[in-house]
Amino acid sequence: MATIGHQLSTGVTPVTPISTMKALVYHMSGNGSGQHAWEDHPTPSIKGPGDAIVRITTSTICGTDLHILKGDVPSVTDGRILGHEGIGVIEQLGAGVTEFQVGEKVIISCITSCTKCEFCRRGMPSHCRHGGWILGNTIDGTQAEYVRIPYADGSLYHFPAGGDEEALVMLSDILPTAFECGVLNGQVKPGDSIAIVGAGPIGLAVLLTAQFYSPAAIYVIDVDDKRLAVAMKLGATAVINDRDGKAAARFLELTGGAGVDVCVEAVGIPETFGICQVLIAPGGRIANIGVHGKPGILHLEQLWDRNITLTTRLVDTTTLPLLLKVITSGKLQPRKLVTHRFHLNDIQKAYETFGNAAQQGALKIILTSN
Amino acid sequence: MATIGHQLSTGVTPVTPISTMKALVYHMSGNGSGQHAWEDHPTPSIKGPGDAIVRITTSTICGTDLHILKGDVPSVTDGRILGHEGIGVIEQLGAGVTEFQVGEKVIISCITSCTKCEFCRRGMPSHCRHGGWILGNTIDGTQAEYVRIPYADGSLYHFPAGGDEEALVMLSDILPTAFECGVLNGQVKPGDSIAIVGAGPIGLAVLLTAQFYSPAAIYVIDVDDKRLAVAMKLGATAVINDRDGKAAARFLELTGGAGVDVCVEAVGIPETFGICQVLIAPGGRIANIGVHGKPGILHLEQLWDRNITLTTRLVDTTTLPLLLKVITSGKLQPRKLVTHRFHLNDIQKAYETFGNAAQQGALKIILTSN
Amino acid sequence: MATIGHQLSTGVTPVTPISTMKALVYHMSGNGSGQHAWEDHPTPSIKGPGDAIVRITTSTICGTDLHILKGDVPSVTDGRILGHEGIGVIEQLGAGVTEFQVGEKVIISCITSCTKCEFCRRGMPSHCRHGGWILGNTIDGTQAEYVRIPYADGSLYHFPAGGDEEALVMLSDILPTAFECGVLNGQVKPGDSIAIVGAGPIGLAVLLTAQFYSPAAIYVIDVDDKRLAVAMKLGATAVINDRDGKAAARFLELTGGAGVDVCVEAVGIPETFGICQVLIAPGGRIANIGVHGKPGILHLEQLWDRNITLTTRLVDTTTLPLLLKVITSGKLQPRKLVTHRFHLNDIQKAYETFGNAAQQGALKIILTSN
Amino acid sequence: MATIGHQLSTGVTPVTPISTMKALVYHMSGNGSGQHAWEDHPTPSIKGPGDAIVRITTSTICGTDLHILKGDVPSVTDGRILGHEGIGVIEQLGAGVTEFQVGEKVIISCITSCTKCEFCRRGMPSHCRHGGWILGNTIDGTQAEYVRIPYADGSLYHFPAGGDEEALVMLSDILPTAFECGVLNGQVKPGDSIAIVGAGPIGLAVLLTAQFYSPAAIYVIDVDDKRLAVAMKLGATAVINDRDGKAAARFLELTGGAGVDVCVEAVGIPETFGICQVLIAPGGRIANIGVHGKPGILHLEQLWDRNITLTTRLVDTTTLPLLLKVITSGKLQPRKLVTHRFHLNDIQKAYETFGNAAQQGALKIILTSN
Repeated sequence: MATIGHQLSTGVTPVTPISTMKALVYHMSGNGSGQHAWEDHPTPSIKGPGDAIVRITTSTICGTDLHILKGDVPSVTDGRILGHEGIGVIEQLGAGVTEFQVGEKVIISCITSCTKCEFCRRGMPSHCRHGGWILGNTIDGTQAEYVRIPYADGSLYHFPAGGDEEALVMLSDILPTAFECGVLNGQVKPGDSIAIVGAGPIGLAVLLTAQFYSPAAIYVIDVDDKRLAVAMKLGATAVINDRDGKAAARFLELTGGAGVDVCVEAVGIPETFGICQVLIAPGGRIANIGVHGKPGILHLEQLWDRNITLTTRLVDTTTLPLLLKVITSGKLQPRKLVTHRFHLNDIQKAYETFGNAAQQGALKIILTSN
Repeated sequence: MATIGHQLSTGVTPVTPISTMKALVYHMSGNGSGQHAWEDHPTPSIKGPGDAIVRITTSTICGTDLHILKGDVPSVTDGRILGHEGIGVIEQLGAGVTEFQVGEKVIISCITSCTKCEFCRRGMPSHCRHGGWILGNTIDGTQAEYVRIPYADGSLYHFPAGGDEEALVMLSDILPTAFECGVLNGQVKPGDSIAIVGAGPIGLAVLLTAQFYSPAAIYVIDVDDKRLAVAMKLGATAVINDRDGKAAARFLELTGGAGVDVCVEAVGIPETFGICQVLIAPGGRIANIGVHGKPGILHLEQLWDRNITLTTRLVDTTTLPLLLKVITSGKLQPRKLVTHRFHLNDIQKAYETFGNAAQQGALKIILTSN
Repeated sequence: MATIGHQLSTGVTPVTPISTMKALVYHMSGNGSGQHAWEDHPTPSIKGPGDAIVRITTSTICGTDLHILKGDVPSVTDGRILGHEGIGVIEQLGAGVTEFQVGEKVIISCITSCTKCEFCRRGMPSHCRHGGWILGNTIDGTQAEYVRIPYADGSLYHFPAGGDEEALVMLSDILPTAFECGVLNGQVKPGDSIAIVGAGPIGLAVLLTAQFYSPAAIYVIDVDDKRLAVAMKLGATAVINDRDGKAAARFLELTGGAGVDVCVEAVGIPETFGICQVLIAPGGRIANIGVHGKPGILHLEQLWDRNITLTTRLVDTTTLPLLLKVITSGKLQPRKLVTHRFHLNDIQKAYETFGNAAQQGALKIILTSN
Repeated sequence: MATIGHQLSTGVTPVTPISTMKALVYHMSGNGSGQHAWEDHPTPSIKGPGDAIVRITTSTICGTDLHILKGDVPSVTDGRILGHEGIGVIEQLGAGVTEFQVGEKVIISCITSCTKCEFCRRGMPSHCRHGGWILGNTIDGTQAEYVRIPYADGSLYHFPAGGDEEALVMLSDILPTAFECGVLNGQVKPGDSIAIVGAGPIGLAVLLTAQFYSPAAIYVIDVDDKRLAVAMKLGATAVINDRDGKAAARFLELTGGAGVDVCVEAVGIPETFGICQVLIAPGGRIANIGVHGKPGILHLEQLWDRNITLTTRLVDTTTLPLLLKVITSGKLQPRKLVTHRFHLNDIQKAYETFGNAAQQGALKIILTSN
């Protein structure tokens, strides 16, 4: 394991002995898709005054990581360390970092924020001029023993004393994504009816965070009865299996044709986007979270006069402090999403489990380095 | 011309002598499309306690009326009097009307609001359980000497002393539609950049009402140079002719690729909806006004992470009082939209002119009964 | 008990035999304060087309009723039947009522809404030109066997099948007041810290409805340990007794000086208003609910640069349908506020209990006619 | 004049030869109030990696500077260089500054923002943990040949090519203050009626920026007829002189007792705060800008049921980019506020003129170094 020095008093990069660490590295196959390897890689070092080097203690795997391995994300090139979620301990800091100390435990946001560009100033760091989603994408990520976090002051958050790493690693991506793209964009309010299309980890995280606002009913639609059973445990009012493609019709029957106030698309394919358009009531909000690879059909000939609001959003993680407060107060238990645990060294087995989520009943998988 | 009695002290329908008036009546042709005739028709009378009978003094023609004549609006059946815009004088009132007096001049909203159902209570009378857009659609409309307005207390507005009928008839539909569906839904704010796709009457009304909020730049796109010239006169920063289908590309060149904060769709076809998706900046709002007859393609594969808000809306006319105050204060001159004037008796000529808007340079056409 | 006829087909007032009922009537004493008497009174009858006559099945007493008896509300004159809360059955309807049927059970709003004036149209029926708070104030109220409700369509709500009268009578006033004036005006959001100053029925209703939004901490301040104990049971994070006037100081110590995001004033005296100003954090919201008889001191010399929002509001009850949905879904149990039950005939005993709330541990008192 | 070196490649403070410049320095008198002197002072140098040294080309004087000289702002100590507004050229930059270049012209915000603390992240840099209003207060300010700006990336803005320094120096403080604390907090919308109490520079800046939203009427109240005449020129609908203390009564007469939707307090004394409370309509917003030295009386006994929102705010200058866009588009001419011009060397004469604003007809005074 790498040995890394302590905080430097200037911004000058130190002459650290070259060291290596283990990391999950993406390699492109001939056919356009990719493979992963748990291999030796140079330990990252400070490159700019805003950088932090973080030793990963807990990480996890995101559905997006699977997309990358299928070759769906062309910005990820051969040799890239994957992962954009994690908790760890700061080992080294650039001279410009003011909000953190070496030795401190931190939560890593999947979104890197310079805090200074016009997008960051507007509260939209997802489109930061210098950052955004870059970890495990255009720069090396968190599925490794160490990671370099640029713009650390805008991209790290203090880990609270007594916090639970398994719970709080969900703040890196899945909880802010569910809350910002689904719940806030859906403008969920007390008494609302909500439909969540897709009961994967992100749909279930919407189910958990939508309950912050005391909706009257939450309907969950999926094709996997196991996931729907989890949805019932996590607070769904009713669930509908769409394996016959008739969920929308059954839902309208169930609700007397009224439609829902909020519909969250948490899959990312044209069919599920289509369901949302059938379910939504006049004046309703369709909040898209799904990562779409293809265009969708928007039935404007039916919706033009229905007073609908449709939103898209890449997570900004600006609500991470809010979510941390809700977790700390005990009103949200993110551990409910955790189904499997592996040592970081066994990350390839973890990918196998996560890649067969349906058979394995896998939701979020915890990776730890201890 | 019909003689009609005065206000009744009970809700009971009076025994008025049967009388007739002139009205523009829709007749279905064999091929599914329609014709209009200026013909004799029984004068309307009070049917319910909330009704008002209004003698029309000013009316106008809407693009929707042309759609009806093409057979695009199946809810309109043979024998229907067209028109949903107008100003007139109250001739008779049902016993339940409390906010108006016989003899008073009123502005007629194109949206009928019962004021009591859950949609009206939520500020969304476009979806009123008992009303909504019914005038000239499912009940007889305003292109006639007289019209019956149900739920008069929620559907009429006091005409201000000294008001200008030509200006204020624009409050029946086009100004609230432009303002609510385009400007409010687009969340226009000072300093914003806006693109309006479509420079017909509704697009130009968006141009006028968007200026309430002091945007920094308003770009207007159309294929008709005459309408674009009008747009420049009415305050556009720059205009782009899309006759070669390259407006979006030219626009992005013009703005350095930045895109606009707000894009208003004011045409209603897939091509113009597509332009909006190209022009919109991250974090931007696409406000649809167009009445679409076909689905659109929504490029979710490009927009899912762009933090876009897309809205549809049938006008509610809830901002009619606000718009009236802005007009009265002199900050909006709706007459700028008026290009032609006809006597109501010549309404068929008016339709001919409006139907050939491009050649005639027609925007809004005023019809008066005096 | 009165016998009253059924729905009439016209708006004409029927010739009902004069009948009498029992009612709690306010009588002015010589010294400016008042007394109540449970006495015979003519049964109300339809006066206008929008009226409903409701037979009261459940009612309750409000703190405002005590204020009236002290002579604090000069608009209440001798002979007035008190009460502005209740549930009952419609016995008779004016010809203009369209949303309700004779025989139907209804919830009576404390706010009468004509639905048509500019205030009602803006969602602010508290300032309705024709209604507002008039029940048990400028017209006869609900603490009687029968009550006449003008503008019934805007002032009554359908009682849901299987509903619980004891729970739902809280929708007449206390729950919407707590939610609208306290929680919505306070802009409570997940993770917020809240202080509620005053643990009477209204403060406790704020405590219940604030939890719709999953705040991280709710602090309750009062001088009555019994009420503070109830607050702990109903979800308070911590409570502070202010009997020594040092609650604000102790609170700031407890929270490390940070102050709260939201402070709700639920008493109505200068001292408690002062506490709110000490507790509030920069950027915070002070939501006043208290009915004040005297001016307060606003420390603008300390607050001018603190980015504070301070609100006042008379309840509009526009959220009654929302609250009903939350209750029906089981996420709110208003019965938690009920401490005593009396037959309507024993209303004077009920007033005695309520007037000695501290000794009696009284919160809301249910009055039933069965 | 000082010679200062160019950008350094590290964050280490350079050994610059000690140099001096001229600056307006605050000195405390025996009696608690203060004096100013235009005297030699060491030229500032880079102290931290986020610093910029700016050579002032244009500055101005704020009413707050006069308050300081009266001894009203105890945080300002003897020897402090005054001033928190200015435009200048960057002479030197700390190693951590990434958004600016040496030699670039910049607008200096009166609010210093670290961009990283929780207040800056919430869009409230007025309460920045490390900054806020510190310039000319707790650190040396802009009324000097040079100024050191800490957290330069969050506290400076690019000066646009072809910009007008006299106009854009108004972006340092007065325009964002008027717009954020008055217009945005007042929630001004099209058709609204507004009263501005105080026609000094800040009240007039409210008058200018309120017009971004096309209100129907803007009333301005002051005791100085000259300022009221300026208000009429700048777009007021009507003005009222309050020298007899009867402005509120006259205003209510003028508006038929209706009150205004928005009332902006732009003076800072109990009397003017009292006027706002009389003028405000039910549902209205009182936006305080005034810097108060004493508490105000809040008539809660009259306002508790009036659905009022009252706000306070120290400017955040977060709308500076928005305002810059509106100015660049030609929709705002801040030069209308400029009445006098002096060379920076004559700043003491400028203070004299500004200190006798009423006699001199002074609004904003431009100070230039060329």
